[in-house]
Amino acid sequence: MKLATFEVETDVGRFRRVGVVDEASLLDVTAGYSYVLDAEGTPKPTERARSIVPPDALELLRVGDDAIDAARTVLDADIPRGDDVRAPDGARVRYDEDEVRLLSPLPRPNSIRDFSVFEGHADHVEKPDVWYDIPVYYKGNPDSVVRPGADVPWPAWENKLDFELEVAAIIGSPGENIDAEDAMDHVAGFTIFNDFTARDTQFREMEMPLGPAKGKDFANGFGPYLVTSDAFEADGAAVRARVNGDRWMSGSLSEMYHSWGEMIEYASRDETLHPGDILGCGTVPGGCCLDLDRWIEPGDTIELEVDGIGTLSHTVTPSGDE
Amino acid sequence: MKLATFEVETDVGRFRRVGVVDEASLLDVTAGYSYVLDAEGTPKPTERARSIVPPDALELLRVGDDAIDAARTVLDADIPRGDDVRAPDGARVRYDEDEVRLLSPLPRPNSIRDFSVFEGHADHVEKPDVWYDIPVYYKGNPDSVVRPGADVPWPAWENKLDFELEVAAIIGSPGENIDAEDAMDHVAGFTIFNDFTARDTQFREMEMPLGPAKGKDFANGFGPYLVTSDAFEADGAAVRARVNGDRWMSGSLSEMYHSWGEMIEYASRDETLHPGDILGCGTVPGGCCLDLDRWIEPGDTIELEVDGIGTLSHTVTPSGDE
Repeated sequence: MKLATFEVETDVGRFRRVGVVDEASLLDVTAGYSYVLDAEGTPKPTERARSIVPPDALELLRVGDDAIDAARTVLDADIPRGDDVRAPDGARVRYDEDEVRLLSPLPRPNSIRDFSVFEGHADHVEKPDVWYDIPVYYKGNPDSVVRPGADVPWPAWENKLDFELEVAAIIGSPGENIDAEDAMDHVAGFTIFNDFTARDTQFREMEMPLGPAKGKDFANGFGPYLVTSDAFEADGAAVRARVNGDRWMSGSLSEMYHSWGEMIEYASRDETLHPGDILGCGTVPGGCCLDLDRWIEPGDTIELEVDGIGTLSHTVTPSGDE
Repeated sequence: MKLATFEVETDVGRFRRVGVVDEASLLDVTAGYSYVLDAEGTPKPTERARSIVPPDALELLRVGDDAIDAARTVLDADIPRGDDVRAPDGARVRYDEDEVRLLSPLPRPNSIRDFSVFEGHADHVEKPDVWYDIPVYYKGNPDSVVRPGADVPWPAWENKLDFELEVAAIIGSPGENIDAEDAMDHVAGFTIFNDFTARDTQFREMEMPLGPAKGKDFANGFGPYLVTSDAFEADGAAVRARVNGDRWMSGSLSEMYHSWGEMIEYASRDETLHPGDILGCGTVPGGCCLDLDRWIEPGDTIELEVDGIGTLSHTVTPSGDE
């Protein structure tokens, strides 16, 4: 099952809604669940749907399994096509994808941790022993999320802008001291992560051992969908990167040195992981300009494709264009 | 003016409220403002007070200057003493400090950035040029805030637990590309920051240049108050650290190599700073066991005192005690 967040323009303002993908259309999960409850004769369907599948992705994840089950109920309900299918409160149930504006499936994550679990990434520098001993990570900026299809301005202070092709797990069920073998019980699903990087700035900052900050924090692309764990091959999916339509790289998730379970076990040691926490796996080898020694330029469109999720696209715009 | 967040136990559950410190008592800013508005004959005082000075510190900061002004109005209103002074909706206006449980002034910050602007901290290692060129920082875990007076469990996986005596600025007014000279317009106030650190883990993680993660993320102490900028000497306040009542260190904020303005200018370059973002200045030289080569033990009580703010105290409990 694929979940999306999308924006609807109305006469009383702009609204964010959560949708479940049904072929080329999106079913509004809140309106759709209310429609289903009403058809079953359940009392107060609007209020009940809003509390079980709220229209905000982070709130929906906080509800937990009941929300995911309700979204699946909507997908399986054979709801008729057409924009005249309405919930009891008049809310529209189905949209064509090209009618709405997709946002990141989680427009403001609770947090971002980004790991580096592929030995082949950045292999021009020898990895220290600690890289093999523990799944190291840094923390990203959850206020810098850019939506699928967005323009990303090239930072005026950076020469070498880069993309990074990653996949990210999104935490659904909270937990502390989670064992690696139980970790998937805490994952709501996966999405594509373009960890935009200002390379010169990053390497300059990393001369101090505090890690990257400005070199990473200006833009984080997530999307287009959150794909539930049951529908995604998290340890082996094929991935590709294209720039202006040319394939620059193809690879897969199969060469992780530390597993998703090990990342979650390490991050949750004496720390609670919360719904909406995002954990990136790090760059799949070859999935960035640094690894390829081939560099993007202002105006380029970067597409990251992951089998089972879709394609996440952004265009890098010249400084000051936005 | 000093603002606090405190918890009130009631017959319909536990509530968080924001208070302004009036000598040894706390005035509930929401109830107090409603009381003042009602005395002035303003219509709908309860609703108006809730929207202008909401009882949640992060929401209050998001309201901005009007909220700070309203809190000041409450402090200046000469509200009578006693627990029988009530707002129109029956809410109590004044509490003795020892009647309530203080939380961090911002129980869940929007984000934590922690800088390192004192040359004398960690001077056993020579600083690279970049340390002098830019105010480097890493990002902390805003979900690991511990309240003033809390027990902090010693992580079972760490030999060398440490405290770090810092002061932190709390962003009030949002902004991007803020000039250093305008930076104080964006600061709501300051608080004490104990950046608890698992030293061995931190140094192990920093063998990779991604910065500290588990070494810092298990506990962040903030408090006891947010002191507004007008009432705090942010570039010179005297500070002290005590362990079990013995003074281990005294110093001041006067030796910052990068100013608060420079930190804010750097962090906000092509990134929006949001209300509730916290920026720590880094350890005042001598304000941690590492600098002193003198180490705390399980059971120790650490007090960090900053003139103009107060004293932030925590007790480190043996592993597994909590």
